[in-house]
Amino acid sequence: MSEKIISIALDAMGGDFAPQNEVAGAIEALKVESDFNIILVGNSKLLENELLNYQYDKTRISVVNSTEVITMKDSPTKAVKEKVNSSLVIASKMVHSKEATALVSAGNTGAVTISSILNIGRIKGVNRPTIAAPIPNEKGSHTRLSDAGAFVDSKAEHLFQFAKLTTVYLETVFNKKNPTVGLLNVGEEESKGYQLTLDTRELLENSNLNFIGNVEGKDIMKGKANIVVCDGFVGNIVLKFAESILPFLKTKLKDYASTGLVPKIQIGLAKSGLSKSLKVADPNLYGGVPLLGINGITIIGHGSSSPIGIKNMILEAVNSSKVNLVEKLSEVLNK
Amino acid sequence: MSEKIISIALDAMGGDFAPQNEVAGAIEALKVESDFNIILVGNSKLLENELLNYQYDKTRISVVNSTEVITMKDSPTKAVKEKVNSSLVIASKMVHSKEATALVSAGNTGAVTISSILNIGRIKGVNRPTIAAPIPNEKGSHTRLSDAGAFVDSKAEHLFQFAKLTTVYLETVFNKKNPTVGLLNVGEEESKGYQLTLDTRELLENSNLNFIGNVEGKDIMKGKANIVVCDGFVGNIVLKFAESILPFLKTKLKDYASTGLVPKIQIGLAKSGLSKSLKVADPNLYGGVPLLGINGITIIGHGSSSPIGIKNMILEAVNSSKVNLVEKLSEVLNK
Repeated sequence: MSEKIISIALDAMGGDFAPQNEVAGAIEALKVESDFNIILVGNSKLLENELLNYQYDKTRISVVNSTEVITMKDSPTKAVKEKVNSSLVIASKMVHSKEATALVSAGNTGAVTISSILNIGRIKGVNRPTIAAPIPNEKGSHTRLSDAGAFVDSKAEHLFQFAKLTTVYLETVFNKKNPTVGLLNVGEEESKGYQLTLDTRELLENSNLNFIGNVEGKDIMKGKANIVVCDGFVGNIVLKFAESILPFLKTKLKDYASTGLVPKIQIGLAKSGLSKSLKVADPNLYGGVPLLGINGITIIGHGSSSPIGIKNMILEAVNSSKVNLVEKLSEVLNK
Repeated sequence: MSEKIISIALDAMGGDFAPQNEVAGAIEALKVESDFNIILVGNSKLLENELLNYQYDKTRISVVNSTEVITMKDSPTKAVKEKVNSSLVIASKMVHSKEATALVSAGNTGAVTISSILNIGRIKGVNRPTIAAPIPNEKGSHTRLSDAGAFVDSKAEHLFQFAKLTTVYLETVFNKKNPTVGLLNVGEEESKGYQLTLDTRELLENSNLNFIGNVEGKDIMKGKANIVVCDGFVGNIVLKFAESILPFLKTKLKDYASTGLVPKIQIGLAKSGLSKSLKVADPNLYGGVPLLGINGITIIGHGSSSPIGIKNMILEAVNSSKVNLVEKLSEVLNK
């Protein structure tokens, strides 16, 4: 355990159910480990009111007031530049000034990314940070899709850096030794793809990363590689497509159940087994996704994060702080 | 019904279970409609032997001998150029010479695409053909993803053409009036994406297509647009990712069932309801995907197509021929 004091700056106004879920999640997180504090950034009146519902160690939660909110509909760059009194921007600046170790937000993903870059800053040597999103796989763990949408139109040297950042992340935070890296492509053959994939392949092949070659769309959930590297355009589309699988299944089951009594009973019987089988696909269980390459920890969550989701985001931020993720990333990037 | 004689050239050596599934599927297709013939292209000894297992109208099936096979492992362009005596190349050339109306193959997708372009040829005015793959959606139908992998690195004018080709396809073959077109992107806002999406958006906005704006990865299975237009790189990755959903679900259910007796019973009870609910996602039910923009009908199927899958591919080819799809496409592209 490190001796520094770990403080998590929680954007308490970010999510769809803010500040209720944020406050509930913060309280839950405190119960799990005792060696960190939480700074709730948001409308202090609302937050203090919400906190009245809970019993907790008052030395571990503080409230910092903010007067603006960046919404899901806001244009990220514009909002981050203009709403300087928003909970997100204030929380980010607290990480920059080292008043906090980590930023946790279930708010507008684009705005969290931009605010992290502008207000916290990048690790020296990092051109573009990457979102390393976990996609559940058949092996019972998650494949990390990197970049899942921090930037579109990245170049080969960016993709190569995404692979490095995500490798160090899995090694440091998940104790995964020498994780495998696959390059997302339209076929396994070396010659497949276009200039970006060909150039990236060359960089990966001549590196000391555990590169296993091209992987295809079907290999992500198969778990063929621990890390799947791609441009943020395709990564974001795949991530959002993946997130639509459970809603699709639910609709299909409901539609079938509505066709008669026997189907209704069949689906009723299926529900519990199904949801237990698909636990690995519940985003609230892993909480959030890291934005890697920022000079501080940033964890981004779903707008719809439950209190359990918020709790898990905070705990990932705490854990990433404890294992000195930023320092490890910086070391590898600058050696 | 048209008065021309419809003949389907079936690449009988293409699929993983060729020629058994190809022959079985052909026999099944004959039973459904009476106004077309099938030309089985492949090793005539093998095919004639296989045909001995069935009773059928011998005037409707003919066999054309080929001495080479393009395998799934072959490099598409090289194989199509070198294996001129392959079932695929011979079948394609029969479409070019008008001995056949359509090419149907469950073989190497890349090779079927290349062979169609080189040996059948494109419709005048078409720069790049497109694969319009059906992805099941929540509305109980399919969203057409176009291009799902015929080409990578397409330009805005290509994507615009994909939208036109797929619109005419849905109107002509599926009687879908004025289908909606969405542009696959990382957000709904007009300014999202990169140069390709910005340029394509402009072309779509100024067209008479039913363009509804950007759609995201999550909107494909939601069925937000009838047609989702994208470059073949991202389209192929999404298509293959989508195809991995059912195997993923099966593995997860099996894993959970293996954890004890109660889970085993739960999953046993769930199976039938689940597979009925997810019928829409069974690729054998729609058979194959069309390659649009070729001067003839080309239907490409999964390597693992069942006899039912082959039957449905043949029937789609027959139907596309009857409604004069190629002539309609040519009309719209050249007006």
